[in-house]
Amino acid sequence: MKKYETYKAHLQQLADIRYAAALLQWDQETYIPKKGTLHRSRQLATLAGIAHELATDPKLGDLLEALSKDSSLSEREKVNIKESLRDYKKQQKYTKAFVEEQSRCISQSFHAWQQAREENNFSIFAPHLEQLVKLKREEAEMVGYEDHPYDALLDHYEPGCKTADLTVLFQDVKQQLVDFVKTISEQPQNNDAVMFKHYAHQQQWDFGIELLQQMHYDFDAGRQDLSAHPFTTSFGPKDVRVTTRVNENDLNEMIWSTIHEGGHALYEQGLTTEDYGLPTGEAISLSIHESQSRLWENNVGRGRAYWESNYKTLQQLFPQNLGEVDLAAFYKAMNIVKPSLIRTNADELTYHFHVLIRFEIEKALMEGTIEVKDLPSYWNARYKEYLNIEVPTDTQGVLQDIHWSHGSFGYFPTYSLGSFYAAQFYAQALIEIPALEAEIRAGNMLPLLQWLRENIHQHGKLYTSEELCQKITGEKLNFKYFMDYARKKYTALYNLQTVAV
Amino acid sequence: MKKYETYKAHLQQLADIRYAAALLQWDQETYIPKKGTLHRSRQLATLAGIAHELATDPKLGDLLEALSKDSSLSEREKVNIKESLRDYKKQQKYTKAFVEEQSRCISQSFHAWQQAREENNFSIFAPHLEQLVKLKREEAEMVGYEDHPYDALLDHYEPGCKTADLTVLFQDVKQQLVDFVKTISEQPQNNDAVMFKHYAHQQQWDFGIELLQQMHYDFDAGRQDLSAHPFTTSFGPKDVRVTTRVNENDLNEMIWSTIHEGGHALYEQGLTTEDYGLPTGEAISLSIHESQSRLWENNVGRGRAYWESNYKTLQQLFPQNLGEVDLAAFYKAMNIVKPSLIRTNADELTYHFHVLIRFEIEKALMEGTIEVKDLPSYWNARYKEYLNIEVPTDTQGVLQDIHWSHGSFGYFPTYSLGSFYAAQFYAQALIEIPALEAEIRAGNMLPLLQWLRENIHQHGKLYTSEELCQKITGEKLNFKYFMDYARKKYTALYNLQTVAV
Repeated sequence: MKKYETYKAHLQQLADIRYAAALLQWDQETYIPKKGTLHRSRQLATLAGIAHELATDPKLGDLLEALSKDSSLSEREKVNIKESLRDYKKQQKYTKAFVEEQSRCISQSFHAWQQAREENNFSIFAPHLEQLVKLKREEAEMVGYEDHPYDALLDHYEPGCKTADLTVLFQDVKQQLVDFVKTISEQPQNNDAVMFKHYAHQQQWDFGIELLQQMHYDFDAGRQDLSAHPFTTSFGPKDVRVTTRVNENDLNEMIWSTIHEGGHALYEQGLTTEDYGLPTGEAISLSIHESQSRLWENNVGRGRAYWESNYKTLQQLFPQNLGEVDLAAFYKAMNIVKPSLIRTNADELTYHFHVLIRFEIEKALMEGTIEVKDLPSYWNARYKEYLNIEVPTDTQGVLQDIHWSHGSFGYFPTYSLGSFYAAQFYAQALIEIPALEAEIRAGNMLPLLQWLRENIHQHGKLYTSEELCQKITGEKLNFKYFMDYARKKYTALYNLQTVAV
Repeated sequence: MKKYETYKAHLQQLADIRYAAALLQWDQETYIPKKGTLHRSRQLATLAGIAHELATDPKLGDLLEALSKDSSLSEREKVNIKESLRDYKKQQKYTKAFVEEQSRCISQSFHAWQQAREENNFSIFAPHLEQLVKLKREEAEMVGYEDHPYDALLDHYEPGCKTADLTVLFQDVKQQLVDFVKTISEQPQNNDAVMFKHYAHQQQWDFGIELLQQMHYDFDAGRQDLSAHPFTTSFGPKDVRVTTRVNENDLNEMIWSTIHEGGHALYEQGLTTEDYGLPTGEAISLSIHESQSRLWENNVGRGRAYWESNYKTLQQLFPQNLGEVDLAAFYKAMNIVKPSLIRTNADELTYHFHVLIRFEIEKALMEGTIEVKDLPSYWNARYKEYLNIEVPTDTQGVLQDIHWSHGSFGYFPTYSLGSFYAAQFYAQALIEIPALEAEIRAGNMLPLLQWLRENIHQHGKLYTSEELCQKITGEKLNFKYFMDYARKKYTALYNLQTVAV
């Protein structure tokens, strides 16, 4: 047992450094003054360098090799050793110089991206992005891959995920969703003007806080702040922070960001404190993480039951805007299917076209079949092709997402995977908790949260995504659940009786 | 030159870790959720451990020994090597286990102190404080001292400062101030009721921001937040943050905290970016730091000239409270000399009795002639003796200051030293800038700031406190300047013509 304790102390120290860096990043996106970025970049680079040293320390490697042969360990301990050994071997492939350079580059890119966005000027961001893409291609070669360089990046977020599989999945998705969205577009259109009246900042903020409280997000173990692009970050399961944004002329932004990040945060708050810094104290993968945010945002938050209780509160906050709008009309307005420019504001169906475009771009960047300077025109052409809309500015186009400025390539596909896992998990929850929708209708989210805590959160990395899905639903990820959910919901919303399958 | 560059890189990496820890601490006192402290303590301990490793790295010692014999270095470089070698030798005396234990203990103490303060229950804090005092006595033995164990702690904040000298100084101060305050107390008393009307939070906050802007505090290189106990912290000269507090029933708290911390922050913002992480890029000592905050708070901020421009703004913000109060009355109200409970709210004369009491307690704790459990009664007896007031609760007594919960013993005396340096520096500034008070009267703080930048800020640790004082004023620290300032100002305020010296 002594070796295991040494291993645990080592990993927890590594977690301390990573969480400290996460706080520096959180601060960088919320409260840092403009000139503070000058030294913040190097502080983050130094922490990244130290984390890398700890993660690749040969003493850790020796410990892990020895422990991986120790049959006296518990199941949970064995998983920790297996996962840590996998990470260790991967980390071994990175040089310290590469890690520090990448950290520095990311920190500078983030600020260039912010400025480029403010000034609607892609060329401010382009040289940084070029440098990042170059680093990512180096990284793929450094880490290694079997089929496609992009696989090496996907693996960070979704272990074992393959470009080839995603290509097939997105092809499948595209065909089924394209047909379905086309059918919707041929029906009389619903009206969502009510979402774009003027909604005062403070009341929106207060409403968002109420929604988080209703979800049982623990404000003693977290807080909400504002940032340009909403995100969730954790410094341990007892300090899990969310950010949101408020647009006074679009009620959607705050509501969906808040519930979405709340879903992520509940996962992190549900990890076990005892396993701080260990794989079993960490989320499985980004797609499972995303399944939690999407489940709350879409399957729960965009459902009629959710608004049975919450709509009254919203009406009281905004009597002028909503006093005369009934729940049925509001429910229709929030579930408009309409091609749009901004991924994070997209409806839950066309959303996957946004991901598809980013997937195609990332794949092409990794293959070297497209150059950074051509991204705006490539982007705009794809939006025309898949969503049939014109992109008026790069701020509303290629500059809209934070991810690339953070060096996160291979991240976007997990959003779609997450939605599909969410649909499959939620279908199972409806079976196992017969009163689920009635509870939600009454504003009681606890039965759902307890189900998620028990089936998903508490396990950490004890199971892989696939194992977990099999364990909970009795089968592997199956796109059918998403399409079933979509068809049932939107057939009713758009009176599609005649074309429903 | 290559060795010097290696040394510089090493020190700047050390600065990165320390500044990262400073951000974690800033967050801990401003935005952290309640339960977040659980893991924050260990994160800070880990960073402290890594910083200690870097600071005591034998490779650094070898570099410093070699560089200290390198006559080709510039004066500034030589000072850096000398100061770094001094630090290195001192750090060598600490064990890693001690540093980590102390960091953990401090982090827990801080939260115990917060709770003890909220619940007015000293016994919540006492066991943590006992542990800290034990560690401080160990530390004195570890670091070593010639005359008195307290010297070892004083040296952290004011290099070379001796308990024996402070004992003489405080004796001197006590006698002169006691007489003077007694004379004042025998005169008809001024009225400060105007300061305790109701002043709305937001308007106070806005006014504080204006004062900081007027001082040329750079909000692009810093920000202001709220905290229980105001402080200034820096993560490099381009990110220097202040906090303040707002009491709606006492206008003094926000005003003096804001100007005071603003003064500290201007010093940090005036350090050179090129010397990031090096001694010449750091403040000399706490007393010189405090001279900057006190100079702005007292010599400038509590002066009549300062309010010639600012009082109109304040009147406009609070017409109901101040519309009928003229500047002369307001000036008198803000300069009431009256024994009070809270150090940070004290007038600039009785303030030094508060410091005196803390100095006596710290000295006694280090000598072991008083026990932590007896602190409340000891504290209350001293307040009765020196200030002739009863302490009604420990929250307003022994629990009022953050310092001990931070493990900062030996810090308080620098407040008084800072005031005395401030008086001496300001007297010199008045000679060198004949229009100084006229500029302040017109709301132009730039001539003063430029004088401070040129004479103090830019040098970092290039000179010691004593050398700097000699260089600027032509003599060593001389208590006479403070008494001259006090006598001149309060003789006018309290019509003491007959007793003025």
